[in-house]
Amino acid sequence: MRAMVFDGKLTCVDDYAVPSLSGDQALLRIRRAGICNTDLELVKGYMNYRGILGHEFVAEVVDGPAEWLGKRVVGEINVADGTCDLCARGIPSQCRGRTTVGMDRHPGAFADYLALTARNLHVVPDEVSDDAATFVEPLAAALQVTELTPITPSSRVIVIGAGKLGLLIAQVLKLTGADLAVVVRRDRPRSLLDQWGIPAVTLEELPAEHAQIVVDVTGSAEGFESALQLVEPRGTIVLKSTYVGLPQADLTRVVVKEVNVVGSRCGPFDAALRLLGQGLIDTQSMIDARYSIEDGLEAMEHSARPGALKVLLTF
Amino acid sequence: MRAMVFDGKLTCVDDYAVPSLSGDQALLRIRRAGICNTDLELVKGYMNYRGILGHEFVAEVVDGPAEWLGKRVVGEINVADGTCDLCARGIPSQCRGRTTVGMDRHPGAFADYLALTARNLHVVPDEVSDDAATFVEPLAAALQVTELTPITPSSRVIVIGAGKLGLLIAQVLKLTGADLAVVVRRDRPRSLLDQWGIPAVTLEELPAEHAQIVVDVTGSAEGFESALQLVEPRGTIVLKSTYVGLPQADLTRVVVKEVNVVGSRCGPFDAALRLLGQGLIDTQSMIDARYSIEDGLEAMEHSARPGALKVLLTF
Repeated sequence: MRAMVFDGKLTCVDDYAVPSLSGDQALLRIRRAGICNTDLELVKGYMNYRGILGHEFVAEVVDGPAEWLGKRVVGEINVADGTCDLCARGIPSQCRGRTTVGMDRHPGAFADYLALTARNLHVVPDEVSDDAATFVEPLAAALQVTELTPITPSSRVIVIGAGKLGLLIAQVLKLTGADLAVVVRRDRPRSLLDQWGIPAVTLEELPAEHAQIVVDVTGSAEGFESALQLVEPRGTIVLKSTYVGLPQADLTRVVVKEVNVVGSRCGPFDAALRLLGQGLIDTQSMIDARYSIEDGLEAMEHSARPGALKVLLTF
Repeated sequence: MRAMVFDGKLTCVDDYAVPSLSGDQALLRIRRAGICNTDLELVKGYMNYRGILGHEFVAEVVDGPAEWLGKRVVGEINVADGTCDLCARGIPSQCRGRTTVGMDRHPGAFADYLALTARNLHVVPDEVSDDAATFVEPLAAALQVTELTPITPSSRVIVIGAGKLGLLIAQVLKLTGADLAVVVRRDRPRSLLDQWGIPAVTLEELPAEHAQIVVDVTGSAEGFESALQLVEPRGTIVLKSTYVGLPQADLTRVVVKEVNVVGSRCGPFDAALRLLGQGLIDTQSMIDARYSIEDGLEAMEHSARPGALKVLLTF
């Protein structure tokens, strides 16, 4: 099968073995996949991953459990062992023994086929297109902001960083009715935010210590520093991006202002599918380009361009 | 009056002007005061403070509002303006316009007299000695851990750092019934913890990712790194010390483990007085030495010795 593989070097091959099934796995034929910033980090060495990349996808079940055959599905990326204390507490995404699709000891979705436990699958309703379904995983991650940090309609909320994930978070937070502003530097996300009726601002336009919740999607020390300036005492900073290296962080200010810093990772697929089914999230405007899986290297290069939004792989 | 003053250089003087009263201030004659690590940081330049040091004290009201005259009191250190949104929300300790006793644009308590708004005063019950009352401010700060992060009896909790504040936090957390361990390096705090029936451990004895709550009282990058190792996914790290400079912090791990980092500062004086009145906190064993205010420089030197516990100033 065709596959985009990272083994210290990124290559696209056409003779990768189709996976065989074990346990309750379903064999998925990938219909479409999306490139995430994490994929770009993985090929720089993050997580020390080796194997097929890709964790944003929509697929069709072509083999495995009978009740899933023929279904159009998306799949959660954390493959839990179902036996640890965190699984028992209903947090399989933080399972102590988990592997992660396309990221940590589990093959990814940038390939014709992927074998994945049926426990991770969600049926995609007809009203959600293949394009939109490819956004379920990152949209679920965006929803994890409000899953861990409930936001009320009267909250003052700032999102710093308007890349792919930041724009999804902005759309999700708009739905809370909160007083929302998004810090942008580039014209492209600014025009998307304008189109969605979400205030796009620069850092200089914002008063210090006035936001109850600041979502840092920058993954940079500067972003965290800005978040610390913008958040009010007793406010909350939600961290949504992994950081390059070990950023310097003003923990003294966290103490003195009694700030709450909440790390947030993968989120609820069901809710993401509901919002997409209801047409409440605009994914189409966020698609920059489509490449065939055979042109995967070119797609990754496109995705790495400064300011690039979603690049899709077709099969 | 006698006073210990920092004006870029630390001096003890005997001719400082007795403060005059304004507004609803009471004139306090200081009976006893305690030296805090923050005082040691202030003379190194923290907060850029100039003036009389000291914010842990017990005093007698000798002038001011009639209903306070003759009362033995302790005083909260955040002098709120009573007009900002945070005051209105019942968080005067985070008042946007606040000054702070002995720390930020307000004279401190290492002096014969201190003028302080009567709104900040709490009467000390007879069963609380002057020595114990001197611990009300740091004990309230210790209680702010459970004020912001409720701890249940079945929680697994670790305190890292067994200095003056860490030992008070350990005593407070013991009262929750939680499964508590305190990371210690020195013999002195180890023997105190033994005396109190609190498990004293080394980092190496603790399993990774197993604590629901880790309280970092080290104020060091290494302490925060240890906390990140010890806390379980979705667990909470409470920061209780200010940090020297800008520590490097593994924010990626905060994201991936979905950790909650809570800054915590000043706490409830009433609760501290109740616990001391009930004899539930051992402050006497934590007193290392007493010096007259005239020997304040010597007292500060003593307090700066590695492993020193509480040094009191007498008047």
